[in-house]
Amino acid sequence: MNRSTSAIVIGGGIIGCTVALELAKRNMHVTVLDKGALGQEASTAAAGMLGAQVETHHPGPFYELCAASQQMYREWARELQEISGVSPQYIEQGIVRVALTEEDEAELRSRLPWIRNAEWIDGADARSLEPAIADAARGGLYFGRDHQVHPIHLMNALRAALSRIGCEAREWTPALRLIVRDGRVTGVKTTDGDLYADHTVLAAGAWSPALLEPLAVKLPLFPVRGQCISVRTDAPPIVRTVFTKGCYIVPKQDGTLLIGATQEEAGFNKKTTVSVVSELHRRATALLPALSGAEFVSTWAGLRPGTPDGLPYMGQLQEAPGLTFATGHFRNGILLAPVTGKLVAGLLDGDQPALDLSPFSPERVQ
Amino acid sequence: MNRSTSAIVIGGGIIGCTVALELAKRNMHVTVLDKGALGQEASTAAAGMLGAQVETHHPGPFYELCAASQQMYREWARELQEISGVSPQYIEQGIVRVALTEEDEAELRSRLPWIRNAEWIDGADARSLEPAIADAARGGLYFGRDHQVHPIHLMNALRAALSRIGCEAREWTPALRLIVRDGRVTGVKTTDGDLYADHTVLAAGAWSPALLEPLAVKLPLFPVRGQCISVRTDAPPIVRTVFTKGCYIVPKQDGTLLIGATQEEAGFNKKTTVSVVSELHRRATALLPALSGAEFVSTWAGLRPGTPDGLPYMGQLQEAPGLTFATGHFRNGILLAPVTGKLVAGLLDGDQPALDLSPFSPERVQ
Amino acid sequence: MNRSTSAIVIGGGIIGCTVALELAKRNMHVTVLDKGALGQEASTAAAGMLGAQVETHHPGPFYELCAASQQMYREWARELQEISGVSPQYIEQGIVRVALTEEDEAELRSRLPWIRNAEWIDGADARSLEPAIADAARGGLYFGRDHQVHPIHLMNALRAALSRIGCEAREWTPALRLIVRDGRVTGVKTTDGDLYADHTVLAAGAWSPALLEPLAVKLPLFPVRGQCISVRTDAPPIVRTVFTKGCYIVPKQDGTLLIGATQEEAGFNKKTTVSVVSELHRRATALLPALSGAEFVSTWAGLRPGTPDGLPYMGQLQEAPGLTFATGHFRNGILLAPVTGKLVAGLLDGDQPALDLSPFSPERVQ
Amino acid sequence: MNRSTSAIVIGGGIIGCTVALELAKRNMHVTVLDKGALGQEASTAAAGMLGAQVETHHPGPFYELCAASQQMYREWARELQEISGVSPQYIEQGIVRVALTEEDEAELRSRLPWIRNAEWIDGADARSLEPAIADAARGGLYFGRDHQVHPIHLMNALRAALSRIGCEAREWTPALRLIVRDGRVTGVKTTDGDLYADHTVLAAGAWSPALLEPLAVKLPLFPVRGQCISVRTDAPPIVRTVFTKGCYIVPKQDGTLLIGATQEEAGFNKKTTVSVVSELHRRATALLPALSGAEFVSTWAGLRPGTPDGLPYMGQLQEAPGLTFATGHFRNGILLAPVTGKLVAGLLDGDQPALDLSPFSPERVQ
Repeated sequence: MNRSTSAIVIGGGIIGCTVALELAKRNMHVTVLDKGALGQEASTAAAGMLGAQVETHHPGPFYELCAASQQMYREWARELQEISGVSPQYIEQGIVRVALTEEDEAELRSRLPWIRNAEWIDGADARSLEPAIADAARGGLYFGRDHQVHPIHLMNALRAALSRIGCEAREWTPALRLIVRDGRVTGVKTTDGDLYADHTVLAAGAWSPALLEPLAVKLPLFPVRGQCISVRTDAPPIVRTVFTKGCYIVPKQDGTLLIGATQEEAGFNKKTTVSVVSELHRRATALLPALSGAEFVSTWAGLRPGTPDGLPYMGQLQEAPGLTFATGHFRNGILLAPVTGKLVAGLLDGDQPALDLSPFSPERVQ
Repeated sequence: MNRSTSAIVIGGGIIGCTVALELAKRNMHVTVLDKGALGQEASTAAAGMLGAQVETHHPGPFYELCAASQQMYREWARELQEISGVSPQYIEQGIVRVALTEEDEAELRSRLPWIRNAEWIDGADARSLEPAIADAARGGLYFGRDHQVHPIHLMNALRAALSRIGCEAREWTPALRLIVRDGRVTGVKTTDGDLYADHTVLAAGAWSPALLEPLAVKLPLFPVRGQCISVRTDAPPIVRTVFTKGCYIVPKQDGTLLIGATQEEAGFNKKTTVSVVSELHRRATALLPALSGAEFVSTWAGLRPGTPDGLPYMGQLQEAPGLTFATGHFRNGILLAPVTGKLVAGLLDGDQPALDLSPFSPERVQ
Repeated sequence: MNRSTSAIVIGGGIIGCTVALELAKRNMHVTVLDKGALGQEASTAAAGMLGAQVETHHPGPFYELCAASQQMYREWARELQEISGVSPQYIEQGIVRVALTEEDEAELRSRLPWIRNAEWIDGADARSLEPAIADAARGGLYFGRDHQVHPIHLMNALRAALSRIGCEAREWTPALRLIVRDGRVTGVKTTDGDLYADHTVLAAGAWSPALLEPLAVKLPLFPVRGQCISVRTDAPPIVRTVFTKGCYIVPKQDGTLLIGATQEEAGFNKKTTVSVVSELHRRATALLPALSGAEFVSTWAGLRPGTPDGLPYMGQLQEAPGLTFATGHFRNGILLAPVTGKLVAGLLDGDQPALDLSPFSPERVQ
Repeated sequence: MNRSTSAIVIGGGIIGCTVALELAKRNMHVTVLDKGALGQEASTAAAGMLGAQVETHHPGPFYELCAASQQMYREWARELQEISGVSPQYIEQGIVRVALTEEDEAELRSRLPWIRNAEWIDGADARSLEPAIADAARGGLYFGRDHQVHPIHLMNALRAALSRIGCEAREWTPALRLIVRDGRVTGVKTTDGDLYADHTVLAAGAWSPALLEPLAVKLPLFPVRGQCISVRTDAPPIVRTVFTKGCYIVPKQDGTLLIGATQEEAGFNKKTTVSVVSELHRRATALLPALSGAEFVSTWAGLRPGTPDGLPYMGQLQEAPGLTFATGHFRNGILLAPVTGKLVAGLLDGDQPALDLSPFSPERVQ
């Protein structure tokens, strides 16, 4: 691929920017469009816990996708820092996934036959790792090799990397719809005029379906609001992320604890509610009683792009040549960024994918 | 008009909400769409100075439109507070428009033959009204009957009024494009599905042109960034708004001074720059030397909807039945809200307009 | 009293600034000292509800003090705006004090024989005044002539008034201790050197006791943390302040609702906790069920100066000539500002007080 | 030293917390007092550039003190993270100190005979290190082994370390004055009562002199306001700190650039002014022209504890047994924290100091 090949990436979140960077590294001429500033939506509302496999209940292609991305993370973060001069604040640190109920314990145990890099620990083990965990903890899974990044720093690194590599980020430039000529997607209509390119990548998260016109393509995808809170105690009671059904608690580098997250289907509304502040605190305190008197720091919400089967859309459609999908990553955009970048850039470049992408193809919903 | 008549207003800024409220008062079933929360763009970035006539350099229809709206303001604000239970913080207070240069003085004097409710004052008069005005002031115009509102409070009042009167505000619901059936605009395609109504009002400010598809209608309209700063001194050095070429200074009820505003054509980018902070402060200090050591409070920017001839688009087009325009109010949206509300609602209701609307018709750019 | 008489006021909150302004109006040369900026502590953490009489459970001198200040408020606010050019946002609007329990109802009914400007209303009456009040409301007291100010605007008005009247506000200048010569208080030692004056007024709220050295005077006074939250709904569900045992809800002019407040003895710590956010929301929702889904806006805390008997310290001590007390106003500083200003300035000026001040004298704790 | 030995540290900034941690590591029972929350004053207003030697114009004891602390930094930061579980965000990265004028060049060259770990580079070298440096740069000194921390993260780490090691931090507890018995400092009078300990350490920065009463000890020390601004460009134009006379620019990990700092003697006032925003931007743009259009992020100010000779006070006084000084670090508190911690803790423990402390002794001002 040479510099005369061009691509437009619609959506400047983690996924869009990662794909753009990957394409630019392959010497393509890339433009990223965003309706606002880069990374203002789900990307920076996330906890940055790279724990999708913590949440994966079954073996299969999605688990393999997560595991592949996780393996790539350390090297990807290092390279990103090298290109950008900005650290994504990558940290290697285990995750403790504990069960507080018998039912949850059974579910966790059922994963043991297939899950990798995890070991079963009993309640005493969990408390010896993290003494602040509640006595009610019945044990759980310990993912000792897990890690996290800081989403805001990750976005800052991606923004700087794109600038340094010569990729144009057109912020505050909403895409309106695709431009289709003779059946092929040839560009994007924007508030700032029409843009044309050899390839168009749709990475607009929850806003993706609206941009598909005039194509008669289906893309079931909807916003799922996730509200989080941030709290502080005198000293962080934990050093690792702890996680139970309905609640995770991530110790951040600035000494605060991030507690997440709801899953609410409430349209594009990003409001935060007092009742969710209360509910997240209640759940977190059941897991870490030391949080009962915690200081309130802040609350916020992001809109994750949800799909009916919970899987992202990555791939192309015969009926839409020129267009590539990289969207619908739900709660897993940060974890899946490295693998998505490689696979999607590879699709444009004609590479043989390292993983079977058919389970993630948008074909499945046509 | 009865409740079975329905309207969709695209755009929940000052203009859209005012039109919606006026339609709801006429018993229409009204839905307001906004891509985010109500009033987050130009509406609340403004100073709230109701001074368009201060800025009008020539007599003519635009001056008459401004004057008509100004006359309506006090009663409109009172009624809005009554409906909403929220005060728009309407204050009657003169504006002093001073000239610091000979050229500017000549321009101001040339308005005397036609401008109403203004009197010429010399430099000493200006300083006796506002002793903080610089010695360099050569005199100017005094608009003793002018007034202001607080834009954020005005938006809060409009939001509450719409809720109380039963008008549905669908926030975080971007409009995508118009729906056209048999040549008539019958509704709006949104991220949340298709909406249909008897009337559609386009009041989306700088974002309006993008929504006109699939109509082949022209609407030259572009964002003009206006950056402001807010500063504080021990006591406000002025009680009235003072204004010179390139800079106005509005004393706000909380004791701060709002200094505005640039006019920059920079696309949809709302970033604020350090150089503009410096420049606005430099200009303000030339007018009020007491601001040289002022405390910095904040800076922000908004995107005003600019038009090539500086006039708003209000009216309908024969080629687009079902659609009414209420957009392009540039720097004057807050001043022009009452008159726009009445005139545009009247158009939908078949009223004979109280003012000749032809200079503002979108016909002029087809 | 003439300009050659001088006074130092220690503490630049509502009480200190009001006393200083009153003294300056009497032509005294006044300096206000504050450890930080004016009005940063309890003064601006308050709701601004002028409702102490709502909270007064017994007739007596404190009730009379509150009633006297309340009667002065409208005129005081008007004059303050005239002097300062800044509006304190005074609003006349009733308060509804409802009982949700039988016990609370009995307590409220027991006030009827002596309380003025209040009428008993039953639950249906309460809901006809404010339809959002819960069905569980058993009725209560309606204070139709009550009013509120906006504490931040009130402080801004006081700051500007002091500046205009020529009173020096030395911010960021902590007082360290009193200077005593031959048994008389002659001034104040500060981080910025020693200051001398004919009179010294102690108005330092919760920080007052520490400044009394080297006098052997007792002043039992302690900080009581009050945490509040601010929330928003589509339209404010109430237009008046509603109030029940343990919780009040004040509709602010910007459309938000302020919910207050805890009373926690936790030293000088101003942290806010998640559990209090939850608890205040729970109480408010019991009173106004419409708040169950309310949007979270913010939370903060202030330190009120509490006293063992709940009464302020206003007066002088024979053993401390030169010193006047104006502190310990607990939750009632904003309501009591006008009367405190008049009475305390009168004491320095040798006026005969309009009210018997002996119940508030610091003599009672020696 | 054993746990039965006790110490009170007055002042919870970087210096006070570091000394406290060092004492606690030596098994002493330590209480830290702060008038507010830990680290709210100069400590977190700083840039975090560990560059005092960049600013040292002469060889001598102060240069040696800085150099000693700098050598300790990496290991100290590592240990702090180990104890606290919070990263102070230590980064090793060179500093480029360039001259823009002939005079400044001469001054820099005059340091070459004695300064260590620095090399002279010409303008072309400077631009090859940091291509964004202005063409006007005449060359300068390159400190290749320099480093930085993030002051807020450093404070978070210290706070957590103190909590974990069992040191009590009494926040919001202003110290009022020393308690002296039979000529010995035996404790501290606070707003929360009297505290007694074997040792008292004065580390209250600009607030130190006021606390010395009733001792007749001199401590000339005054607040020096330093205002900074933070700006952003698409990508950080530099990876290292660049520095010229009157201005330094520090690239932070979040992609922003910190520009500092003024030196203003204006009492305890922490206000920020618009004119300083302009001036810092003007200076920074002379050094890095790419900043001319930079986005404004924020501005703030801190109060550094200045001394007449520019040296800190570290040591004890014969006339004040029981008291140890650790204050007056001016712009260098973050750099000097490790060495101050070791030396001051050593003094209490009876260690033979590794450096001659006499130049820093408070004896020099008695």
